[in-house]
Amino acid sequence: MQINLNEEILAMARDARESSRVLRNAGRDKKDKALEFMVEEIHLRKDEIIKINAKDVDLAKKNGLSYAMIDRLKLNEETIDSMVDGLREVAALPDPVGEIPGMWVRPNGLKVGRIRVPLGVIGFIYESRPNVTVDAAALCLKSGNAVLLKGGSEAINSNLILNEILNGAMEKADLPKKSIQVISSTKHEAVGYLLKMDDYVDVIIPRGGEDLIRFVAENSRIPVLRHFKGVCHVYVDKYADLSMAQNICFNAKVQRPGVCNAMETMLVQEDIAMSFLPDMIKVFQDAGVEIRACENTVKIVPGLIPARESDWPAEFLDLVLAVKIVKDMDEAIDHIDRYGSKHTEAIVTSNYDRARGFLESVDASVVLVNASTRFNDGFELGLGAEIGINTSKLHSYGPMGLQELTTTKFIVTGSGQVRQ
Amino acid sequence: MQINLNEEILAMARDARESSRVLRNAGRDKKDKALEFMVEEIHLRKDEIIKINAKDVDLAKKNGLSYAMIDRLKLNEETIDSMVDGLREVAALPDPVGEIPGMWVRPNGLKVGRIRVPLGVIGFIYESRPNVTVDAAALCLKSGNAVLLKGGSEAINSNLILNEILNGAMEKADLPKKSIQVISSTKHEAVGYLLKMDDYVDVIIPRGGEDLIRFVAENSRIPVLRHFKGVCHVYVDKYADLSMAQNICFNAKVQRPGVCNAMETMLVQEDIAMSFLPDMIKVFQDAGVEIRACENTVKIVPGLIPARESDWPAEFLDLVLAVKIVKDMDEAIDHIDRYGSKHTEAIVTSNYDRARGFLESVDASVVLVNASTRFNDGFELGLGAEIGINTSKLHSYGPMGLQELTTTKFIVTGSGQVRQ
Repeated sequence: MQINLNEEILAMARDARESSRVLRNAGRDKKDKALEFMVEEIHLRKDEIIKINAKDVDLAKKNGLSYAMIDRLKLNEETIDSMVDGLREVAALPDPVGEIPGMWVRPNGLKVGRIRVPLGVIGFIYESRPNVTVDAAALCLKSGNAVLLKGGSEAINSNLILNEILNGAMEKADLPKKSIQVISSTKHEAVGYLLKMDDYVDVIIPRGGEDLIRFVAENSRIPVLRHFKGVCHVYVDKYADLSMAQNICFNAKVQRPGVCNAMETMLVQEDIAMSFLPDMIKVFQDAGVEIRACENTVKIVPGLIPARESDWPAEFLDLVLAVKIVKDMDEAIDHIDRYGSKHTEAIVTSNYDRARGFLESVDASVVLVNASTRFNDGFELGLGAEIGINTSKLHSYGPMGLQELTTTKFIVTGSGQVRQ
Repeated sequence: MQINLNEEILAMARDARESSRVLRNAGRDKKDKALEFMVEEIHLRKDEIIKINAKDVDLAKKNGLSYAMIDRLKLNEETIDSMVDGLREVAALPDPVGEIPGMWVRPNGLKVGRIRVPLGVIGFIYESRPNVTVDAAALCLKSGNAVLLKGGSEAINSNLILNEILNGAMEKADLPKKSIQVISSTKHEAVGYLLKMDDYVDVIIPRGGEDLIRFVAENSRIPVLRHFKGVCHVYVDKYADLSMAQNICFNAKVQRPGVCNAMETMLVQEDIAMSFLPDMIKVFQDAGVEIRACENTVKIVPGLIPARESDWPAEFLDLVLAVKIVKDMDEAIDHIDRYGSKHTEAIVTSNYDRARGFLESVDASVVLVNASTRFNDGFELGLGAEIGINTSKLHSYGPMGLQELTTTKFIVTGSGQVRQ
């Protein structure tokens, strides 16, 4: 039984590799055509999708899944419309494949350059959001990659109907339908097998909780692009405009606390702690934010919950904030180096040297001056779309758009040159 | 004992991480100063280096190592001079760190850009060439990275004296000496432990035989940049200038047959097989090249050794060449897709569409038109230096220079922007 599952995944991986050979040379026209057909088909079969999705939702309710999980699983007119909007947005983005950022000439006359090419086959592992199936398929197609999609077992019926629709659109555009394949097994072992297909799969992108991502990172033979968590800081410098600092910190914590680019710890330089913290903390408390404070903060605002050591590296993903007073920017950067997750770090300051120093010295995928951490996002930073965020440094560091689903190969044009 | 070794490597990895925090902000001046001190010290202590290297060489002879291995292990005035030249060349290269290729402005006024930063800590695993110790240390230093060096056990005495000299130069330049650390254990287990230090090491670069590289790739928790082998082809198209084709094929095979970018299989389009192959094969045979020929080639040049299936994916690294006649460019590209190693592929043609099509369609890290495969090399392609070649597609595809030892992080400058 398990051997059969391994063989099933192997066959899918081989088909994906074969399809990727066609896809890598498919022009923008065909790829955008396929995206348009997807839009049409999803519109046409909206009722059917919602009906089949209801099966998944019913089963999820029967199995006692949390409200949040059921909410993410559920498709309705509105979520399907936003799925379709997403497809249109990807179609409108420029095709990264074939771009040649520049060429140079060697003394012997060889012209050398780099040309952008697809990665090949992408393994995408995610939890129970059927809209991610369509998003990921669209981004992989546009960047010329085949994709193997392993979604959460709770969403399997929804994913399979979407797979059928996406495949149909590919065929209609005269592109190989096996460029997009949903792994139909709901067994956990399927992930393990997929992670061993290093002969056929070029990169694995996991999206979901920290446990899923750690499992993938530790068991994959294939390179993994991932972030484990976002422990993001805002450092309020002595030279900060305090009202700007209050706006930014409030936005970073409260606007959407459950996401990876929300602030988890606020660092405040001691010289302004007395003038900044009491008001700021009141604003947070009025919004329902629980403060976990360092000793010196408690001295300024008595009665706060004292922070424990475990609060500094914590990703609360909730209306909870750790607050620490630091001596200077160096101490702030040391704290970030020790407890941060290389995700998103911001400074608020009006001092040129501090801004420049923070941007250069802080090791994180996105470093901001005088702006909310919430801007670490492919759309917000201008990449057009986002397939995920990478906090390991290889390949790309930070949010990943279409370009990050490609690589560059060298091209060399000569006139008969040989090596001496 | 083994627990101690693991702890020893762990301590080294931690020291490397700490050093990398200083190194990532060290300016070009200091880094180049350290390279100059290395040049001076190696000059001053040349006799001592040669004397200590002789111990390694004597032991290698006693242990019956091959002539080729002893040759690579041996240091003399000349090899030390070329080591020193290498250091000077690296010092003369521009510093990749801090480069900002461009910034763009978002509708809300945020300025967004990417800035080049070091990867952090590099684990470099290689065989018995002490000069690689110095080369790799210099490239890692210049790109702002700390490095852990695990060389072949045969070279341990040579590597340790070089380590001492490099450390001294770092201290003299006021940079942390633990930025450069040779792992002194000659135990094989040391490699295994190093490959598990994913909390402290950002990337592993192995250089050596295919077995070593496979072991590293299969056992590493840390991303690996590597190529397994180079099975490189030259495709001689129907529209080739036959004398240019002869020059290029001869150079690609004979100029240095033992290296990864030498041609291993020559593909010839059937229309020109009669006019091209007899002469070409004679030239090869005169140079001592053994030909393993497909059936159709044997019909044209009788008496050749027939190629076996195992010859097509073979990396001979010797004066041996597989030859195959193909129907057209598509068949050539199919053959390359099936048997190639994504390393280096060349076409010889005078036809514009074929040149363009080959460049675009062939999936290899370097694709050439009318030039020898031997040009796949960091120096030859203008990268200034080379730390290795990557044939996996993540991070960089092809030869890796200083830039490939860095990544980019996003920097964002705002004026108080928050997310709506």
